[in-house]
Amino acid sequence: MHILETMTVSQGSRFVIVGAGVGGLVAARSLASAGVEVLLVDRHNYHSFVPLIYQVAAAQLPPELIAYPIRRILRRQNNVHFLMTEVKQIDFTDRVLETDGPTIPYDFLVLATESQSQFLGVPGAAENTLPLTTIAEALTLRNHFLHCFERAVAFRDPAQLPQLLTFAIVGGGPAGVELAGAWMELIKGPLAKDYPHLDWQQVRVIILQSANRLLPHLPRRLGEYAQKQLRKLGVKVHLQARVREVTADAVYLEDGTIINASTIVWTAGVEAHFRDPTAVEPTLQLPEHPEVYAIEDLSLLEGQALIGVAPTAQQLGVAVARNILLQLKGEDPLPFQDCAARTLRDRDIGRAAIIKRNAGVAKLGKLNLTGFLPWLLCLGVRWFYLPGFRNRLAVLYHWICDYLWGDRPYRHILPSPDAIASEIPDIVTESEKSSIPEGGK
Amino acid sequence: MHILETMTVSQGSRFVIVGAGVGGLVAARSLASAGVEVLLVDRHNYHSFVPLIYQVAAAQLPPELIAYPIRRILRRQNNVHFLMTEVKQIDFTDRVLETDGPTIPYDFLVLATESQSQFLGVPGAAENTLPLTTIAEALTLRNHFLHCFERAVAFRDPAQLPQLLTFAIVGGGPAGVELAGAWMELIKGPLAKDYPHLDWQQVRVIILQSANRLLPHLPRRLGEYAQKQLRKLGVKVHLQARVREVTADAVYLEDGTIINASTIVWTAGVEAHFRDPTAVEPTLQLPEHPEVYAIEDLSLLEGQALIGVAPTAQQLGVAVARNILLQLKGEDPLPFQDCAARTLRDRDIGRAAIIKRNAGVAKLGKLNLTGFLPWLLCLGVRWFYLPGFRNRLAVLYHWICDYLWGDRPYRHILPSPDAIASEIPDIVTESEKSSIPEGGK
Repeated sequence: MHILETMTVSQGSRFVIVGAGVGGLVAARSLASAGVEVLLVDRHNYHSFVPLIYQVAAAQLPPELIAYPIRRILRRQNNVHFLMTEVKQIDFTDRVLETDGPTIPYDFLVLATESQSQFLGVPGAAENTLPLTTIAEALTLRNHFLHCFERAVAFRDPAQLPQLLTFAIVGGGPAGVELAGAWMELIKGPLAKDYPHLDWQQVRVIILQSANRLLPHLPRRLGEYAQKQLRKLGVKVHLQARVREVTADAVYLEDGTIINASTIVWTAGVEAHFRDPTAVEPTLQLPEHPEVYAIEDLSLLEGQALIGVAPTAQQLGVAVARNILLQLKGEDPLPFQDCAARTLRDRDIGRAAIIKRNAGVAKLGKLNLTGFLPWLLCLGVRWFYLPGFRNRLAVLYHWICDYLWGDRPYRHILPSPDAIASEIPDIVTESEKSSIPEGGK
Repeated sequence: MHILETMTVSQGSRFVIVGAGVGGLVAARSLASAGVEVLLVDRHNYHSFVPLIYQVAAAQLPPELIAYPIRRILRRQNNVHFLMTEVKQIDFTDRVLETDGPTIPYDFLVLATESQSQFLGVPGAAENTLPLTTIAEALTLRNHFLHCFERAVAFRDPAQLPQLLTFAIVGGGPAGVELAGAWMELIKGPLAKDYPHLDWQQVRVIILQSANRLLPHLPRRLGEYAQKQLRKLGVKVHLQARVREVTADAVYLEDGTIINASTIVWTAGVEAHFRDPTAVEPTLQLPEHPEVYAIEDLSLLEGQALIGVAPTAQQLGVAVARNILLQLKGEDPLPFQDCAARTLRDRDIGRAAIIKRNAGVAKLGKLNLTGFLPWLLCLGVRWFYLPGFRNRLAVLYHWICDYLWGDRPYRHILPSPDAIASEIPDIVTESEKSSIPEGGK
């Protein structure tokens, strides 16, 4: 019996949620506890905890600790079914999802997919920069970063070293600031011991920020503190650095500066899949399709700057479930803000960012904090929201070890498992890909 | 300055060791502490702890915990230099290693590469089976195993389920026994909860053993105990199952039995790289090339069955260093057994294997043990030899959690990082690949 066939058509309709981020999970749970049977679809079998992804890229945590199996999360939710499959296309007219597995019909659809990098129209950015929004991307960055040092040692042409050992990070928001600090700590600590003969004058971590200060969403004083602390650590901060073009080995700024770098990370912006972000009604419905809701997980856009984990994503998840239930009762969906106010108190109690060991910034209401306290607070809140009790303890253990000994032991250049897996004959058959009969409604 | 140029030519010769397994590391350290400068080469930047690889394949441990950065291991060994590069070919006449990075000349060479699967001439085995000798292979197996369950849920053709959910393991030695037990525990514990609607009658883990009992290197009673315990757990054990051929979706036995399986693991044998294992002198030298020693890491061949980690590999590492030092002094190298007896007491104090929770087997001298005690002993000894104090504590924590709650939280189908990394333009240049000038001697 197939999951799509055994799943009861609940309240006369099929409810499908795409994306098991915070928003998608909250929406699924909210609908499920109202007695609605939901099919949740994600291309991975795990939920990723976005606020700590940068620590995977900086060899601080194994990726498994910040990812949690979705089926484990949903174990006690009898009304939520899960399918691991990648949505390729959405046919809004026929109300059908085309995936790399079965074709999935829906009556109500919630789009809660991950956000992805937004390249703001910069030529070459999409092709030549490395993003940092998913766990796979964090592993790629870790491999790439560490490999640059291995290659620097194997190189015999010293003229290439400056480019090889320049790590340019486009974007001076929380994601860029946190990665720059974590990488520089990795370089100054374990890597300096690993490569005693390397010419450390050549190693540069550079933040390219288009605004005139770091962390533009926080008060000026906090951005200036972050800049001072990063500079003290050795990170170069270029303000008002507008990127004109990116090539395979250089960033070209509008003021004519050329930064030769083999590693160019893009943290400047993220955007939603499948839709134009401006084209959503205040009720979170698509204008032409009142049965489709869009709450793409924008946690990266705002999440790393927030105390608490993506509270807006949580509110959106609750709001969308509420609106669907209103629609089922024949009532009108409410605009998001009203809806959120009715369902959850505003949990956006503050914004914070980690800069480096013992140094963070936070804005709590009207209070602006810098230094040890906001650093601890920011780590603590992320730790609190990390899924899985067992992972929380393991992460705490790794953090304490890092703090006491300054080591980052997970600096492995792990080979790709899939490169070998692709040699296994694929047994997906045609029958698997065919559409299932339309039912329900 | 390039590492190959800065490296002093020690005692008039260049010493190169290929492979940072137990044997290679011990040889490097032994030579280094005798004042010889050594270049150690490995295709990875980490040392793998082979005896716990099966626990990565069974979602019990994150791979990072059983791999340790080689540069971290060598931090206090001033005389050992490391290069991460893959040896492609060895020119024994010109005494040069061709790698995917620089070309490396040598005067003395130690081959201590990883063992790899040996397919014993079975047609189709190399193409259609999954090995389990490296961390990448363990991750591939974990992905593949878990993906079979996700696909079983997405399938609509019930005729395909038996093949999809059959996991055939060729080989009834310690590697096969340990993987079968760990997989069955994963299936009966967390996966049964993850997939409540799956038809569990279809799920089969099968060991195909050519001998007439499991663990043929141990006394008969221990093999019979392992078989009884595995059968109790639900593992099917086919004895005297000689594999005639392997195809993409089936194992054909010589007695005519056909086992349809989407997952076929090969643990039946391992062999050394680069050489015919019979073609080595008792002194561990290659017959025609007295400057080349071969001590390929055979820890998989024997390691999982041993208490203690690859003691023979350790002895080989010490022996080879000793013989090279004898050669430098103009003396004759000693045969391995004499050499080992002079340098290390025999540490092969016993053999053991883990079967499942609370059940192991061990042979300690004349003592044959089964049950809880050898299980604990076997885990304890492997734990003791695991590199890295911090990893030891983390592994202990995970084992205790597993034991108390029976959960295996690392059941992620992690995407390949390299698939994205390959999009980064490669900046390896011709100059990097050119040969370095011959020096020394």
